[in-house]
Amino acid sequence: MNKLYIIKIGGNVLDDEKSLKRFLTDFATIQAPKILIHGGGTIATKIGDQLGIKSSYVKGRRITDAPTLDLVTMVYGGLINKQIVAQLQKLGCNAMGLTGADGNMIKAVKRPVNEIDYGFVGDITPDSVNSTLLYFLLKQNVIPIFAPLTYADGVILNTNADTIASVLAVSLSKHFDVRLIYCFEKKGVLKDITDENSVIRLLDASSYKQFLSQGIFADGILPKLENAFAAIQSGVKEVLIGEAGDLIKNTREETEGTLIKQ
Amino acid sequence: MNKLYIIKIGGNVLDDEKSLKRFLTDFATIQAPKILIHGGGTIATKIGDQLGIKSSYVKGRRITDAPTLDLVTMVYGGLINKQIVAQLQKLGCNAMGLTGADGNMIKAVKRPVNEIDYGFVGDITPDSVNSTLLYFLLKQNVIPIFAPLTYADGVILNTNADTIASVLAVSLSKHFDVRLIYCFEKKGVLKDITDENSVIRLLDASSYKQFLSQGIFADGILPKLENAFAAIQSGVKEVLIGEAGDLIKNTREETEGTLIKQ
Repeated sequence: MNKLYIIKIGGNVLDDEKSLKRFLTDFATIQAPKILIHGGGTIATKIGDQLGIKSSYVKGRRITDAPTLDLVTMVYGGLINKQIVAQLQKLGCNAMGLTGADGNMIKAVKRPVNEIDYGFVGDITPDSVNSTLLYFLLKQNVIPIFAPLTYADGVILNTNADTIASVLAVSLSKHFDVRLIYCFEKKGVLKDITDENSVIRLLDASSYKQFLSQGIFADGILPKLENAFAAIQSGVKEVLIGEAGDLIKNTREETEGTLIKQ
Repeated sequence: MNKLYIIKIGGNVLDDEKSLKRFLTDFATIQAPKILIHGGGTIATKIGDQLGIKSSYVKGRRITDAPTLDLVTMVYGGLINKQIVAQLQKLGCNAMGLTGADGNMIKAVKRPVNEIDYGFVGDITPDSVNSTLLYFLLKQNVIPIFAPLTYADGVILNTNADTIASVLAVSLSKHFDVRLIYCFEKKGVLKDITDENSVIRLLDASSYKQFLSQGIFADGILPKLENAFAAIQSGVKEVLIGEAGDLIKNTREETEGTLIKQ
């Protein structure tokens, strides 16, 4: 099977013009089918403040009320997404900006109201993905650029970008050998949180178990690792956790970040 | 050749929730390939006012400066476009929201600075259109929904929605029998501007010439008619000028609005 790179970037890349430019330049040079998923960034908060839209929280969890939904639809689906697409086009990469609503790409279920009403938030599974059309676009050398938005029942919904990346990876693993790359602020998963040079280069199910029993992982990295192994168990060939600046190195066999395999 | 409907709506439909809902319901029922182009609407001005972005004018012409460009990228490319797409998906229409940057669909030239610097405005011709990818999407039963945005040299550009509709129509007329439908606030082109019932049902080059020599057309409709005949002369089979509420009737042989033919 052909290789497919599914790459997720977050606010730390989006908020810094230079980092973003460097990342997009690297992204454009990858000579294989690829998909980018971008998160939000501080620009949404900044514009929200100007519009008098305050982030609301219940029990420490962010709530997407109607004004916040309009804000993220504008900023994620419009401003950030289209600026990335225009820049990639200049770099010779035939990018196409998408939300889950476009082409029915990712149909969500609005999160049910139990203890907390999260508002306009969409929950998704690999079955939510219209992988037929997505596969078709990739075959035409179109590079999908996803904003962290899905939809259900006629409305846009806010959805976690890490989850979108993982769900796309699982769904497309029937067509490709997928390497799912999560870019974050560190070089990789660290053995010693105080030592930036202690990156674990390779993790498989058994070494993961061993490290877990030793209790070496910091709380922040645990959900990422759980997501990564869930993806691997659902057919994704490899997951890579690393720094955006190392993107090119992290598309190779010998990686800078943490490569996770079955 | 198969029929293709290219339909443009403006602010008068977008600004009224009921009109928009009715229009989208009608649009979804059209059983043929179709493309929608939407303009802006007062929501952009409203959000711009809240963000302190003032529309600037030089010699009565609107200028797209950098803050205005961000505003229209957010509102046209994000908010309006994605809300339309989500609503159409609910109506069973596999809509895909696009700007000219997405999939390199419409590559513009930034308007040269002569007497007036219009700012971030893109000029386009039928050669600007990536009709191969557009045709391919239509073949997959995907319904493209265009925001009035194009791009050049790594940046998004503001482009007139009427012009985008006309350029798409000309470019796709090699694959389809195109009917280009301009929805505006009147039933059609009026013989007598004071009489709403004086719609001219059919116009061809010779009757147009005759009416022109009689000086019956109001100033407002003249540029629309010039555009329409320019499109016809460049291969578009039919242009229809009418009211959004008459959409379904205006897709038939016997139309409510003004049908323009060679």
